[in-house]
Amino acid sequence: MSLVLTALAGIPLIHAGDDLAPILLASLQRAGTSLLDGDVLVLAQKIVSKAEGRMVRLDSVLPSAQAQALAEASDKDARFCELVLRESREVLRVRPGTIIVEHRLGFVCANAGIDHSNVDGPGTDPEQYVLLLPEDPDATAARLRGVTGTSIGLSGLPGLVDMRGQPDLFGFRLRVTTIAAADELAAAASLVMGQAAEGTPAIHVRGFPYPLREGSLHELIRPHEEDLFR
Amino acid sequence: MSLVLTALAGIPLIHAGDDLAPILLASLQRAGTSLLDGDVLVLAQKIVSKAEGRMVRLDSVLPSAQAQALAEASDKDARFCELVLRESREVLRVRPGTIIVEHRLGFVCANAGIDHSNVDGPGTDPEQYVLLLPEDPDATAARLRGVTGTSIGLSGLPGLVDMRGQPDLFGFRLRVTTIAAADELAAAASLVMGQAAEGTPAIHVRGFPYPLREGSLHELIRPHEEDLFR
Repeated sequence: MSLVLTALAGIPLIHAGDDLAPILLASLQRAGTSLLDGDVLVLAQKIVSKAEGRMVRLDSVLPSAQAQALAEASDKDARFCELVLRESREVLRVRPGTIIVEHRLGFVCANAGIDHSNVDGPGTDPEQYVLLLPEDPDATAARLRGVTGTSIGLSGLPGLVDMRGQPDLFGFRLRVTTIAAADELAAAASLVMGQAAEGTPAIHVRGFPYPLREGSLHELIRPHEEDLFR
Repeated sequence: MSLVLTALAGIPLIHAGDDLAPILLASLQRAGTSLLDGDVLVLAQKIVSKAEGRMVRLDSVLPSAQAQALAEASDKDARFCELVLRESREVLRVRPGTIIVEHRLGFVCANAGIDHSNVDGPGTDPEQYVLLLPEDPDATAARLRGVTGTSIGLSGLPGLVDMRGQPDLFGFRLRVTTIAAADELAAAASLVMGQAAEGTPAIHVRGFPYPLREGSLHELIRPHEEDLFR
């Protein structure tokens, strides 16, 4: 029983409006593989955001008073803070260099997931551009899946695998074990993607060990009352 | 570039005093593979704890007053709470059903990592036994590595991979990216291990994408001043 994660090389730089489906299919062909039943494709968030045109030029952002206060408290750019606030439901922690928020998609993360590395822009100062998370990652995954015939992102695979009630080795009932299978897969894919110059933003996965089914990002979000940050 | 994780089947139930090295070598042989330079073995904590005799019969534990107070606040067994306290440096959060501590090894986790599933014992009520984390996982990994000639656990592979200062795709300096490579590998291995009746507590890994070097659990522990739980 093996899990095989293969980096798909040669994916070009993605621009706003690009259709990812044919790009991914071509990269699968180049890698000498295809999508069989049960295979999963894991995509880096950045190529989805870029295809969706989620790049924002900081110069175009007018910070509110609230963003200016957040900039003061966090030692960050006020325009950046404005975008963080627009992308968030609630600010949970602020320290110099650190802003922890509940993102509008529901998860808790730093800087609302806004990043400016690996973002290119038309201007001469590319650091002036930042990249927001995709508008609706589940919908994007579902749309790509419709085109390619299998699971991409968190469509068609379980976010959580509920093992409660299953017997363990000794016949106990496992009482609280729920496996964040999609997160574990994302971590595995991240290991293969690397983070820097390698540039392999898509990973082909064969041997995902749990039954595939409809899934959603929302499975992975801890209810407020179980969130120990609160 | 592929990362291949293979579950090693047929590992027997482990008992206190068992020598894991020959057991693992035999399972590698059965899987038709061997350890090449650069390969990694990932072991489930439970088989290391069992081999080290870290199983404790709850009946043998006398709870302190502090443990009784913790039991009250957490709705957990006072003897279990006594063990949690013995294994911890500090209790960080308590709610009914939840105890978050700083483990004596330095990381923050629930219940000091003490588990009672998949623990067998000589008595008639196996639920009365619990399993503590290994005494010194880095030392165990180093000892096993000495025997088998390659990396097992967190000996000989990096806990963190420091990408700071490396150029990203567009020549930026990546500013804060440090990759918890060992954690990502552990998540990948966990996906292949499963949690319940499958019982594959060892995973053979080929294609780990970062240079191997000496490593330690301590790399993965966030300094107190960066720990947002505090």
